[in-house]
Amino acid sequence: MSGPAPRRILLDCDPGHDDAMAILLAAASPAVEFVAITTVAGNQTLEKTTLNARRVCSVAGIDDVPIAAGCDRPLVREPMQADDIHGESGLDGVDWPEPTVGLDPRHAVDVIAEAAIEGDGPLTIVAVGPLTNVATALARHPGIRERIDRISIMGGAIGLGNWSPSAEFNIIEDPEAAAAVLASGLPITLVPLEVTHRALATPAVLARIEALRGPVSDMSVALMRFFAETYERVFGFAAPAVHDPCAVAAVIDPTLVTTRHVNVEVDLESTLSLGRTVCDIHGITGRAPNADVGVDLDVDRFWDLMVQALATYSVARPEVPTP
Amino acid sequence: MSGPAPRRILLDCDPGHDDAMAILLAAASPAVEFVAITTVAGNQTLEKTTLNARRVCSVAGIDDVPIAAGCDRPLVREPMQADDIHGESGLDGVDWPEPTVGLDPRHAVDVIAEAAIEGDGPLTIVAVGPLTNVATALARHPGIRERIDRISIMGGAIGLGNWSPSAEFNIIEDPEAAAAVLASGLPITLVPLEVTHRALATPAVLARIEALRGPVSDMSVALMRFFAETYERVFGFAAPAVHDPCAVAAVIDPTLVTTRHVNVEVDLESTLSLGRTVCDIHGITGRAPNADVGVDLDVDRFWDLMVQALATYSVARPEVPTP
Amino acid sequence: MSGPAPRRILLDCDPGHDDAMAILLAAASPAVEFVAITTVAGNQTLEKTTLNARRVCSVAGIDDVPIAAGCDRPLVREPMQADDIHGESGLDGVDWPEPTVGLDPRHAVDVIAEAAIEGDGPLTIVAVGPLTNVATALARHPGIRERIDRISIMGGAIGLGNWSPSAEFNIIEDPEAAAAVLASGLPITLVPLEVTHRALATPAVLARIEALRGPVSDMSVALMRFFAETYERVFGFAAPAVHDPCAVAAVIDPTLVTTRHVNVEVDLESTLSLGRTVCDIHGITGRAPNADVGVDLDVDRFWDLMVQALATYSVARPEVPTP
Amino acid sequence: MSGPAPRRILLDCDPGHDDAMAILLAAASPAVEFVAITTVAGNQTLEKTTLNARRVCSVAGIDDVPIAAGCDRPLVREPMQADDIHGESGLDGVDWPEPTVGLDPRHAVDVIAEAAIEGDGPLTIVAVGPLTNVATALARHPGIRERIDRISIMGGAIGLGNWSPSAEFNIIEDPEAAAAVLASGLPITLVPLEVTHRALATPAVLARIEALRGPVSDMSVALMRFFAETYERVFGFAAPAVHDPCAVAAVIDPTLVTTRHVNVEVDLESTLSLGRTVCDIHGITGRAPNADVGVDLDVDRFWDLMVQALATYSVARPEVPTP
Repeated sequence: MSGPAPRRILLDCDPGHDDAMAILLAAASPAVEFVAITTVAGNQTLEKTTLNARRVCSVAGIDDVPIAAGCDRPLVREPMQADDIHGESGLDGVDWPEPTVGLDPRHAVDVIAEAAIEGDGPLTIVAVGPLTNVATALARHPGIRERIDRISIMGGAIGLGNWSPSAEFNIIEDPEAAAAVLASGLPITLVPLEVTHRALATPAVLARIEALRGPVSDMSVALMRFFAETYERVFGFAAPAVHDPCAVAAVIDPTLVTTRHVNVEVDLESTLSLGRTVCDIHGITGRAPNADVGVDLDVDRFWDLMVQALATYSVARPEVPTP
Repeated sequence: MSGPAPRRILLDCDPGHDDAMAILLAAASPAVEFVAITTVAGNQTLEKTTLNARRVCSVAGIDDVPIAAGCDRPLVREPMQADDIHGESGLDGVDWPEPTVGLDPRHAVDVIAEAAIEGDGPLTIVAVGPLTNVATALARHPGIRERIDRISIMGGAIGLGNWSPSAEFNIIEDPEAAAAVLASGLPITLVPLEVTHRALATPAVLARIEALRGPVSDMSVALMRFFAETYERVFGFAAPAVHDPCAVAAVIDPTLVTTRHVNVEVDLESTLSLGRTVCDIHGITGRAPNADVGVDLDVDRFWDLMVQALATYSVARPEVPTP
Repeated sequence: MSGPAPRRILLDCDPGHDDAMAILLAAASPAVEFVAITTVAGNQTLEKTTLNARRVCSVAGIDDVPIAAGCDRPLVREPMQADDIHGESGLDGVDWPEPTVGLDPRHAVDVIAEAAIEGDGPLTIVAVGPLTNVATALARHPGIRERIDRISIMGGAIGLGNWSPSAEFNIIEDPEAAAAVLASGLPITLVPLEVTHRALATPAVLARIEALRGPVSDMSVALMRFFAETYERVFGFAAPAVHDPCAVAAVIDPTLVTTRHVNVEVDLESTLSLGRTVCDIHGITGRAPNADVGVDLDVDRFWDLMVQALATYSVARPEVPTP
Repeated sequence: MSGPAPRRILLDCDPGHDDAMAILLAAASPAVEFVAITTVAGNQTLEKTTLNARRVCSVAGIDDVPIAAGCDRPLVREPMQADDIHGESGLDGVDWPEPTVGLDPRHAVDVIAEAAIEGDGPLTIVAVGPLTNVATALARHPGIRERIDRISIMGGAIGLGNWSPSAEFNIIEDPEAAAAVLASGLPITLVPLEVTHRALATPAVLARIEALRGPVSDMSVALMRFFAETYERVFGFAAPAVHDPCAVAAVIDPTLVTTRHVNVEVDLESTLSLGRTVCDIHGITGRAPNADVGVDLDVDRFWDLMVQALATYSVARPEVPTP
């Protein structure tokens, strides 16, 4: 007797410390079939985010998920990088060995389209970087719309942003792409800072991960420790918010993230509010709902899921040196 | 031996249920000299807000504070009214007797200027409606700037607004006026929704006020009960937020409101974010701080102050019928 | 037997070279009763524009028109000055004697209100600077609306601006004030750059004025010569555009300016297009017309009117030295 | 002895009456090698514009230029159609026979990329519809940038727009795409309404074309006659502006269009000015030039070129019935 077919997911990301955790969560979960990783310019240049995806997969022994590079800049605006948060490599804090996992020669936009069209069952896209690849795939391959059952996005904020007082980084980095995706009519889960700022890698959490005593859990702890320093310095947070795996978790177990079905629009007009995800939480605008916006996280169960995923890597893998 | 001279305050308001509470608080506090009430179009038309100020003062026996009417519409945009929240009269919920307190014939803008220039010591303006009068006074009488020691504003939101997902009513009603006041260079306290949404008139609070057993406390309870219904219907709040007296309280006892000295700009550019008070809470924009923005309220001590103020009216005043 | 009563006009200005010509035209025209000059910050600081108005009137012997100073900065934004165009004094090019005409002690905003309310017949406001005074008068004294029969504005552009590619100086200097005036519902004539760029002080025009051989015509020629240099340097114009008297001329003889009754809105939203007067010349927006927008000038008759006005000064006045 | 190699051009279009003339001009010119036609949603839906391209080529016997369909909607915004101008088919006014020219199965975005990479010598893109295909090609295939020597765009306005007072249709239909292309750093010729409103199909012009007495010239006249009616009705023009071939002509013979090398930015922020091409004609913004903006057209020589091109079709082709 078998359960339901696992959900087919593609992860579009820009690793990034929390992107690394999203990759590890997606690859370890039996509830999903992890069909591809696509990379995009965001936290760092495309070259660096792509290398970082390969680094994480190499250390974790994830060698059966194709990694394809995508758009090297936002649709319209000049690229910015989040050096302050993720360091010069985009994944500082670990002394990375040469990656053993290769690069898929296809463009990410085509990988997204092929993953949508070719598989059994619809595709769920989890997008945890700027939405350039996803928007370009929808523009270039409009036929894939009917094969995508949901896009789960880490991005935006209901209230205060992190890259500006109005905007979260993934959205402001390519606000036009975000607006295009939100206007696509596809089912969307938006996991904003109000959710991810609850997913804090506290000392207690780090202790649980450290206790797994494997190279992947060690790598995770090293990444979270570096991330903790930048979050403390820039935002005054006592522990870093591990944003990206929340959008994966919301697919693996939708009960982890409490959502509201409301209208979300991206501000493209304003110098002060550029990239703000205007979420009509009180339903006062009369605009039609287009997204399930996360408003709360079941913190304990989220970390249980994450630790459980990391535990699967702790059997017999090669060591990763930390600096 | 005497203490410091009481602070001279002028209250610019658009009553409004919570404005009524602000008037009652200001008039009862020994810490301030209440020099004038000026009214502005906002929650309702100027005609109605002015009548309402006279009604409240008449019931409360406040007959030594001049009441002057001001601007009948925002600087640039078309007026809106908050009928949904405050009812058709702007102060529904009480069966008002004919007011006995008259109207000062001067224009509010001139009253502000004269109050600033003529008194002993500087003037503190507490502005709990749209900022049209205050901005016009600064434009018409620039010499008063050096006579104003602070403007305490109830308005704005760090995160989610109440009139739109981006904006609070007082600011979006006249965003240009708000921008002008914030750009004035004067010391400003901004008391946003994050503070006032903590000042909830819960059943326990109402019971304390009701126990005062006087016409003014009865009027207050009747107003809060009406307000409770609209807040429940529109926002799903269990108890109504009594916004405006928070800005008075922040002057009477600055320790009640925790503030941060940050940059605040008003979004004038965006359809989606019009009137948003963009507060640089994390200090990430590089823009110079121009306001002390409230981030928390000492709820218990706030209500102690409010109840204490209402108690002063409960000695020997005429009755007010409630419907 | 007498003709119609002369139209009562008040000139709100920020002299400025072309403002000077507007003063001279208004004061010399038998078709209008010139009730006041009000000054505003614009081409230069309020202090300088006010002094310049007194200078021009002193040289021209205009001593029966009150001059009152108004707002010293725009409603919302930081002031800019047009030093590049009008020089450091705002009226460079003449070696001004000490003015003999004094300053009315009233504020311009009150002068506008009193001129509207007290005279026989309605008031026409000719506004050739930023609209701060006019907007503030309408906000502070709403009762004057019914006493104003028209506001003739030099400002804006249908196509290309002069202070930015989108905007003309008078409008972008205080776009919120311009928006407020255009939204007032009062009859408005807008005289944009498309009209005033036809009012060029060519060598032939200057020769006609010079031939008048009086101190006022000499002053005018000296001002136009200075203006010619800056227009050549900044815009590459062969002759300077004498903007402001066009708005006076449109009142004295409305047949001089061809207009279309269309919708005009001021762009307040955009960094790139701030202050643009969006004129719906083709009637394609569906927005209600609110202004008579000038699209053409009868150039020859305009200069006839101007020269005729300057000729009235050339009888017996004291000399003005030019540097 | 041979002349220079003909310039390789690809025409991206949304036929459209004037697009048809652009196709006919490009296909007949010996100065260019016409490598492909790509279609985009714009004047009408993608389905219709693609059919129309095939119709025009079929009538004209242009069977050696591949036609490929591209993006079916703008990058971010909802599509609009110009039914008012081009009729329900997008090419009303001719009773079209079934097209004999087929459709290339590739996507326009890939055709653009392949044309850039595979040919001898660089590619010139002439884009006379919304810039969605071009922007998507640059996003999806960034490597093609170095193989594109110029993009000649029909679009925008220095002054008054045609779809709004601020914007021309091709730009406002996909303003984000236009902004992306203008920000690409590639050499750009922008042929705005100021140029194309001089390319009027006057009765004299139509008489010249009619005199060619061939099916293609007859088709051209029928299209221009339909276009004349809509231009008269909507804009009050005495003769229609034949916009799109101007951008082709600017490539065939750059001396036909007078240009200035200035900064052009697309307004993405403003409700009133959305899609305006802000052209810094006077060089007053300090922003770096990024386009050669057309300011004038050699009208006579343009029509000579056009008529000469149409004459090449008038030898032996099948008839096209007109309704």
